[in-house]
Amino acid sequence: MRTNLPLNADRLWADIMALAEITDPARPYTRRSFTPLFLEGRTWLAQCFAAAGLATRIDTAGNLIGRLEGRNPALGVIAIGSHSDTVPSGGRFDGIAGVAAGLEIVRALRESGTRLDHTIEIIDFLAEEPSEYGLSCVGSRGMTGALDGGMLSLTGPGGETLRDALRRVGGDPDQLDQARRDDIKAFLELHIEQGIVLESRSLDVGIVTSIVGIRRIEIVFQGEADHAGTTPLGLRHDALVAAAATVSSVRGVAEKLAAEGPDYFVATVGILTVEPSASNVVPGRSRLVIDARTTNPALTKSFVEAIDRESLEHAAAARVQRASFETLSDGAPAACDPELRSALRESARDLGLEESDLPSGAGHDAAFMSRICPSAMVFVPCRAGKSHAPEEWASREAIAAGAAVIYQAVMALDRSIAQKGRAAAR
Amino acid sequence: MRTNLPLNADRLWADIMALAEITDPARPYTRRSFTPLFLEGRTWLAQCFAAAGLATRIDTAGNLIGRLEGRNPALGVIAIGSHSDTVPSGGRFDGIAGVAAGLEIVRALRESGTRLDHTIEIIDFLAEEPSEYGLSCVGSRGMTGALDGGMLSLTGPGGETLRDALRRVGGDPDQLDQARRDDIKAFLELHIEQGIVLESRSLDVGIVTSIVGIRRIEIVFQGEADHAGTTPLGLRHDALVAAAATVSSVRGVAEKLAAEGPDYFVATVGILTVEPSASNVVPGRSRLVIDARTTNPALTKSFVEAIDRESLEHAAAARVQRASFETLSDGAPAACDPELRSALRESARDLGLEESDLPSGAGHDAAFMSRICPSAMVFVPCRAGKSHAPEEWASREAIAAGAAVIYQAVMALDRSIAQKGRAAAR
Repeated sequence: MRTNLPLNADRLWADIMALAEITDPARPYTRRSFTPLFLEGRTWLAQCFAAAGLATRIDTAGNLIGRLEGRNPALGVIAIGSHSDTVPSGGRFDGIAGVAAGLEIVRALRESGTRLDHTIEIIDFLAEEPSEYGLSCVGSRGMTGALDGGMLSLTGPGGETLRDALRRVGGDPDQLDQARRDDIKAFLELHIEQGIVLESRSLDVGIVTSIVGIRRIEIVFQGEADHAGTTPLGLRHDALVAAAATVSSVRGVAEKLAAEGPDYFVATVGILTVEPSASNVVPGRSRLVIDARTTNPALTKSFVEAIDRESLEHAAAARVQRASFETLSDGAPAACDPELRSALRESARDLGLEESDLPSGAGHDAAFMSRICPSAMVFVPCRAGKSHAPEEWASREAIAAGAAVIYQAVMALDRSIAQKGRAAAR
Repeated sequence: MRTNLPLNADRLWADIMALAEITDPARPYTRRSFTPLFLEGRTWLAQCFAAAGLATRIDTAGNLIGRLEGRNPALGVIAIGSHSDTVPSGGRFDGIAGVAAGLEIVRALRESGTRLDHTIEIIDFLAEEPSEYGLSCVGSRGMTGALDGGMLSLTGPGGETLRDALRRVGGDPDQLDQARRDDIKAFLELHIEQGIVLESRSLDVGIVTSIVGIRRIEIVFQGEADHAGTTPLGLRHDALVAAAATVSSVRGVAEKLAAEGPDYFVATVGILTVEPSASNVVPGRSRLVIDARTTNPALTKSFVEAIDRESLEHAAAARVQRASFETLSDGAPAACDPELRSALRESARDLGLEESDLPSGAGHDAAFMSRICPSAMVFVPCRAGKSHAPEEWASREAIAAGAAVIYQAVMALDRSIAQKGRAAAR
C-alpha cells in the first residue's frame, strides 16, 4: 500500500475515534438514531463540518448536510456520505468511516488550495440502521422520494410516530418534497466491507459492482401442541419438524443458486421460534424468517418458488398447516454506476492500491441514492469480516486509502462530469 | 359399557368438579403445588377424607394420606392415589381423578358394609407435576427414598428452598425417613390416558404395562454470528443449520426405532433457541432439548448413540462446534406388576368393560411407587388425547368405570395377597 496519500490519515482516524467515544457507556458502541446520544454525535459532527468551512444544515428528511460551494454551482453537486447511527452494541466504523472520510476529503481539498467546479456535499444520512421505528435508511429514503406516509406512521418507543421523531431531530415530515434532490450528479460512499473477501485476498479496496436486493419472508407452521410422551409419532402434528426441514431447504437451495454463478446469492434463516417451547410438549407452532439477498432478482424468484414448494411439502409430511408464507419486505438490487466505478478503479490504480470489483451483500444508503443519481461505493477491509459488534475493526491505513481513492475520483469526476455536461449542451 | 357400577358415579364426578373450582380464576385450571390455592384444595380434600371415615394426616414428605384400618393391620396396606396439583392452565382431571376415585372407592366399600383385611390408604402425592422448584413427583420420591439433599436445596419463587417449601405445606424435610414405607403391599393409580389410543379404539380402560423412562438431552451448537448479507455460504458457521438437521435426525431415528416394535418409543425436540435471533445475522448459537421416552432402555441407548453420531456429523457439515451434548435427566422405565395387572384385567372383564394393555408415555407417581411395592395403573379415555390444557376432558362414565375396576381389584387383592402372605408364612 502507498503511504504518501493526498490526505491526513491521522486526522481522519482521530475523527472516527472521537465519534466512537459518543456511545452508551454500558454497551459500546451504541449511538442509536433519534436518541440524545445520536443528536450529541451530530452536534459534534456539525461543528467539524463548520470548522472545515462547510455550510451546514439538516434537510427535511433529517439528513445532516455540509456544503462547499463550487466555482460553477450550476454544474450541480458531487455528494459523499454515509451514516453516523449504529446498531445496538455495534462498532466504531460502520457508517461513521464514510462520513469522516467525506469530511477529511473536503479538508484536504481546501488545504491543497483546490477549488472544484462542482459543489461538494458531505451527507450524514438519518437512521441507516434499522431504527426503533422498524425502518432503515430513513434519510436516504427521504432524499430519494421513498419515504411515504405509511412509513411515517410507524411507531417506536413510547408510541412516538416516526413522523414525530423526524420532527424532533430537525426534519420536517410535512415538507419532505424539499429533501428530494435532482441536482446531485454523483454519489460516493466509503464503507467497511463487513465481509472477509478483501482481507483474505490482501486487497486494499473493493469497488462495489452492485448492492444486493433483500427479500424477507416469514413462514409460520401451525401444528398441534400434544403431549410428548403419550402422542405416538404417527399421530403428531409437529410444527418444528416442518420448520427444521425448511431450514435445510433454505440452505440447500441457496447453495445451489450461489454455485451456478456468476451472480451473488445468499439466504439465511436467522430467526426461528417454537411454541410452547417446553421439553415435554410437541411443538404446536413454529415461525421462521428467511433473508435472501442477490444481485440478480431472477435468482430470488427461483429461490422463492423452490422454498414455497418445499415448505409446503414439509408441512404435508409433518401433517401441519403452513399457516403463512409472507413477504415482509422486498428491495431490488442496485447496480453501481459504471462511470463512477471506472473513476474509482483508476484512482486506486493511480494510488498504487490493490483493488477488485465485488458485490455488496449488505444494504447501504447508496442503494437508495442510485435511484436519483449515479452512485458507487468503495469498500475497505475490516478484520475477520466482523461488523455490527464491538470488535469491528478497520485500520487507520485502510480507511485512509479508501478515502484517498474517493478524493482522487472526486477530482477526476469534477472534470469529466463537467466535460460531459458541456458536450451535452452543445 | 356396563352402567350398574359398584360405586356412585355422580358423587365421584361432583368431587372432581368441586376440586376443579379451586383454581386461579384468571387461568383455569391452575392449582400449582405449594401455593395457597393448592393448600385450599388439600383442606377441602382432607375434609372429604375425614367425612368418609378416614384417619387423615400429612406425612413428612408432604403427602396427604387418608387411612381406613383393616381387620388385620399386620397384613399391610393397599394404597390408591394420585395427585391434586396441576400444571399452569391445566385440566380438571389429570391427577385429581385418581385421588377422587380412591375416595369414592372407600365410601363405596363402607356403604356396602365391606370391611377389608388390609388397611386402605388414599394418597394425594405432593407436587407430581414439575414444580416451581424444578422437580416433579416430590411426594412419591419422598415416600420411596428418592428425595435427596440436593433436591431439597433447589430454589423456587423468591429464593425459597424446596426444603422450606416442604415444611410450609406440612412436611418435615429433616425426618424424611419417616415417610419411607415398607408396609404397602400394592399401589393402584387411576389416571386419564393423556393420549388417544383408548378413544380411537373405543376402549373403556387401559391396563398399563409399563411407565416410560424419560431421557432428556441438551445439545448446543456454537458457530459464528456473521452478517447474513456479506458472508458467503461456504464461509459460514451457521449453528441453526446443524440444529435443524439434528431435529430431522431425532424424528427419523425415533420413527425407525418405534417401527421396530414391540416396545414403545417416542422422541421430541420441544425446545429450540437461536442466538442472536435477528433476521440479518447468521445464527451463532443454537440450543435444543430432546425428550426421548421408552419402555425399553435398550432403545434409548440406540437412540442416543445415533443422535450423538449424527449431530456430530451435522456440526462438521455446518462447520460449527457441538459445544454440548449433555444428559439433563435419565429416568428408568417402570414395569407395572403382573399380578396387579392381572387383577385389574379380570376386574374389567367381570364388569363387562373393554380393556387393553397399553404403555404409559407420561411419567406418574406409580413409577416411583414401583420401587417399593407392586404397582399398577388404570387409564381412562380422555377426549382427543388432550391434557395439560383447559380443554382436557374425560366423561363421568369413563372415570366411574375406571374407579370400579380398581374397586373390584382391591377386593380381589385383599383376598389374594392375604392368601399369598399365609402361604409364604407356612
